[in-house]
Amino acid sequence: MRIAELSRRADVPVPTIKYYLREGLLFPGERTSHNQAQYTEAHVRRLRLVRALIEVGGLSVAATREVLAKMYGPGMSVLDSAGKAQFAMVTPRPVIEDEAWEAATRHTDELIERLGWRVRATNPARQTLASALATLFRLGQTDQLKLLDGYARAARQVAEADLAQLRQEHDPDTLLETAVIWTALGDVVFSALRRFAQEDASYGAAAQERPAPNGTPEKPTTPSGQDTSGKPTAPSEGQAGRRR
Amino acid sequence: MRIAELSRRADVPVPTIKYYLREGLLFPGERTSHNQAQYTEAHVRRLRLVRALIEVGGLSVAATREVLAKMYGPGMSVLDSAGKAQFAMVTPRPVIEDEAWEAATRHTDELIERLGWRVRATNPARQTLASALATLFRLGQTDQLKLLDGYARAARQVAEADLAQLRQEHDPDTLLETAVIWTALGDVVFSALRRFAQEDASYGAAAQERPAPNGTPEKPTTPSGQDTSGKPTAPSEGQAGRRR
Repeated sequence: MRIAELSRRADVPVPTIKYYLREGLLFPGERTSHNQAQYTEAHVRRLRLVRALIEVGGLSVAATREVLAKMYGPGMSVLDSAGKAQFAMVTPRPVIEDEAWEAATRHTDELIERLGWRVRATNPARQTLASALATLFRLGQTDQLKLLDGYARAARQVAEADLAQLRQEHDPDTLLETAVIWTALGDVVFSALRRFAQEDASYGAAAQERPAPNGTPEKPTTPSGQDTSGKPTAPSEGQAGRRR
Repeated sequence: MRIAELSRRADVPVPTIKYYLREGLLFPGERTSHNQAQYTEAHVRRLRLVRALIEVGGLSVAATREVLAKMYGPGMSVLDSAGKAQFAMVTPRPVIEDEAWEAATRHTDELIERLGWRVRATNPARQTLASALATLFRLGQTDQLKLLDGYARAARQVAEADLAQLRQEHDPDTLLETAVIWTALGDVVFSALRRFAQEDASYGAAAQERPAPNGTPEKPTTPSGQDTSGKPTAPSEGQAGRRR
């Protein structure tokens, strides 16, 4: 196919495709004349992957090039390639090496030790976690540290489901693309579902603010208080609605 | 305290503090002379909150102002304020309203319906989830949709643990700050733990690639194959190591 068709199929503008070609995010087509080239389904697929990495993973062009290099580097297993690509997907955060950072790093090491998980010293998520914990230490919100083990259990569940799902895929290229994209997308999906769960759970919490006669809430309350059927409701604004 | 002391205590440079004052992210100190003002512990605390929202939540100054306005708006319960602040923390993504987007929106609505969760139509996480699912549809990775229910269960677990932890806090100001900051931080923490779990689980997967005599792997393998003790190992690079 010509570049115009490639643009239509992958939903990427022609100038962007040319930019990706110059930046090495897309391999060249087969040249058919001085100023024309033929592209294939493999180009459509690569373009979609690049767009997903940039738009969903929030990667820069340089980081995307790095991820692709890790994904399609020679002589490694698919899971190995996916792992390396995932390491390249983490943007290092600036670190302030204060006392909070030291405590957070120690806490991260201890957590991994306690879980008994094999996590390489080079896994960039160690720094991600330590940065987040350092913020908790700086804000004095150390009670939240008690939540870590529960978060780890939940993370383990989804990681194992991810892996079981990946094992269903037998085409190595698809497996690799899925592993890399889903690592980024799964975070976004989980974050959205956590917001949903927070909203739903907070209705129950609002009900608990006003204890029922037997001490536990029988039915969720809503801001208007008009629907006490216990069925899902969708108030117009606010959260955990009951005003006080 | 003077502004220099405030700067030291909150670890925020004086020019940044002045900028926040101009932008309304920090309330003014008590003016003691033409060019001096006195600040209090409340200023230290607010500054730390603002920094956390900007650095961890990745919010712009304008978005931070909006979140603070929702947090400290009049006449609402703490959970209500926290919920509104959380709605303001989500940055809307550009939406391409194609077939994939329509399918993703429908899928999001059906998921919420199936879960029986009360999620307001205005909850911006609906758009976050639909955007992520639209990417799956565009990439043809619809097998990953099967993972949604498991992700929802995991999200529900952490959301309930979050809420139980929040209930331990009786000071309304601390509760509000914790609820808002932890919403952002918890995503980062979960994402890091998911990377840890992926790495650890992938060692088991690599072992399964080469079936043991009885059909199940007895011991994890490592890239070098030198350590077969089954204990956690930390190879120097790559993931799920075994080359093929």
